[in-house]
Amino acid sequence: MASAPLSEFELIERIRSQVTHNPGIVLGIGDDCAILSPTPQCSLVTTDMLLDGRHFILAECGPEAVGEKAMGVNLSDIAAMAGKPIAAFVSIGLPRQSADTTALGILKGLRKVAERFNVELAGGDTNVWDGPLAINVTLIGETVPPGPVHRSGAQAGDGIFVTGPLGGSILGRHLHPKPRIAESLQLRACMNLHSMIDLSDGLASDLRHILAASGNLGAILFDDAIPIHDDAWILASRDGRSALEHALCDGEDFELCFTAPRKEIENLVLPDSSNWHPVLVGEIQAEPGLRSKQANGQIEPLTLQGFDHMIASKQFDDAL
Amino acid sequence: MASAPLSEFELIERIRSQVTHNPGIVLGIGDDCAILSPTPQCSLVTTDMLLDGRHFILAECGPEAVGEKAMGVNLSDIAAMAGKPIAAFVSIGLPRQSADTTALGILKGLRKVAERFNVELAGGDTNVWDGPLAINVTLIGETVPPGPVHRSGAQAGDGIFVTGPLGGSILGRHLHPKPRIAESLQLRACMNLHSMIDLSDGLASDLRHILAASGNLGAILFDDAIPIHDDAWILASRDGRSALEHALCDGEDFELCFTAPRKEIENLVLPDSSNWHPVLVGEIQAEPGLRSKQANGQIEPLTLQGFDHMIASKQFDDAL
Repeated sequence: MASAPLSEFELIERIRSQVTHNPGIVLGIGDDCAILSPTPQCSLVTTDMLLDGRHFILAECGPEAVGEKAMGVNLSDIAAMAGKPIAAFVSIGLPRQSADTTALGILKGLRKVAERFNVELAGGDTNVWDGPLAINVTLIGETVPPGPVHRSGAQAGDGIFVTGPLGGSILGRHLHPKPRIAESLQLRACMNLHSMIDLSDGLASDLRHILAASGNLGAILFDDAIPIHDDAWILASRDGRSALEHALCDGEDFELCFTAPRKEIENLVLPDSSNWHPVLVGEIQAEPGLRSKQANGQIEPLTLQGFDHMIASKQFDDAL
Repeated sequence: MASAPLSEFELIERIRSQVTHNPGIVLGIGDDCAILSPTPQCSLVTTDMLLDGRHFILAECGPEAVGEKAMGVNLSDIAAMAGKPIAAFVSIGLPRQSADTTALGILKGLRKVAERFNVELAGGDTNVWDGPLAINVTLIGETVPPGPVHRSGAQAGDGIFVTGPLGGSILGRHLHPKPRIAESLQLRACMNLHSMIDLSDGLASDLRHILAASGNLGAILFDDAIPIHDDAWILASRDGRSALEHALCDGEDFELCFTAPRKEIENLVLPDSSNWHPVLVGEIQAEPGLRSKQANGQIEPLTLQGFDHMIASKQFDDAL
């Protein structure tokens, strides 16, 4: 790497020469705005800001993981609506001391994920400052027929499904999300999905968002059906909370949670080579409130909460 | 204001209940993505990150000005392509000590500008952290027939025009940009615009972007034609640099610079009530390089530079 500092325009040139191209982009990096071609589909837009000390610790994970995570969490939001990603817009506030290496490391991580999902890095904004690293990605995608899946469509009687094991992502997985874009499109193509959300705040919180958006419905979760990630067990052995609690409350799993009539799942035929399958974890009910059915058959109100980015910030900081 | 901290969802509810609605938005705040309706026009996308100590000083200007500036600078980029704004996506990293009041103040500033330009606040991301205030706005707009104006269309012989007086915005104007959306649409409707950019880095820099993008053309600026803002004179009286130098090099004027055949300007008929008019400040030339024609008729190479966000950060910090 050159020892002289990169100018903003050298950096932009370097980014521009390396980006994946998506046919939806008429004009990418280099003008006042990017230009996206018209599409008969609706556009999907999501944005997420990641901050040093909150969503990653730069000194521990390095800039490439930051780029990976920033792109991945936004892709996960596109997956949550059953959309197809098109273009990413990346803004970075770089700590002055290591601006160049940080910028290039982040770019490497962004590109790695962008290439995998055919996302064009179509614009952005780079700044140097005296604060810690801050990065924002806005991702634009498009809906896929028969249309996007909202949080608000859950119906009493729906099965509640998740796409993979939960909990303990703080041990490292949260830095390398595996956005469920392909899985979401497969689900959308095969099943009548009623509602969907990605698990960023923990199942106990994110399911509440579905319930609230769907007209104050309720749900029951089957404790012994919740797929618990190995990381949740490891964390449980360290902190005395149960692995189930970690699976329900830890944030940043980036799996999908969706609801659909139970029998719909029979329409989903996955190839033998497929390394995932949805797991039924509960049922939507007309009676408001979140309940859990314990292994002994007893039903209790579920008072556990996931992650609130405004209030519960200390909880996450402590976990880091 | 309540003394208990706002939860993320209370904040989102408060934002949602107050936003301007734009008919281009099918679904705004509240799901994993916003949904924008299809349009026969191309979409325009721009993003800008503003950082405490770099683009504003929160302790001096307060949060409302931050919101105004964050929305305004992005609108200025939409104006630079002759587009119509539709939706804004706002991410904020809030300093822990004053998260609520800062968030609500920013929201007030954002709304003030958004309402004026019929922009819907359609999504975002709020976080609390231990760093200084960081805010990112991504703005989505649409092109207007006969299409967007690029930086890259300048031609030798074009007149170079600006939409207002330049320089010294650091005295306070930079916090309250007046994005030239209406003016840009008026220009687009009346004239054959060849190229356009908004003046965020200073005319000397931004004009170079037009020249580079248009195939390495050159230009001459008429020193005695550059409209100099009163603030540039005030600053000049303090720091010994000339007012002209401030007009050419200071960033964040957020006026437009466009090029067009000189006679095209005759097609622009502004109502008597109009409080602006474009000013001819120079000419595009085939010979590469930027030159200035001084008041005595002498032509010299113009070596002054505007603002580089990566390298010249100290320059701006000093000015602050």
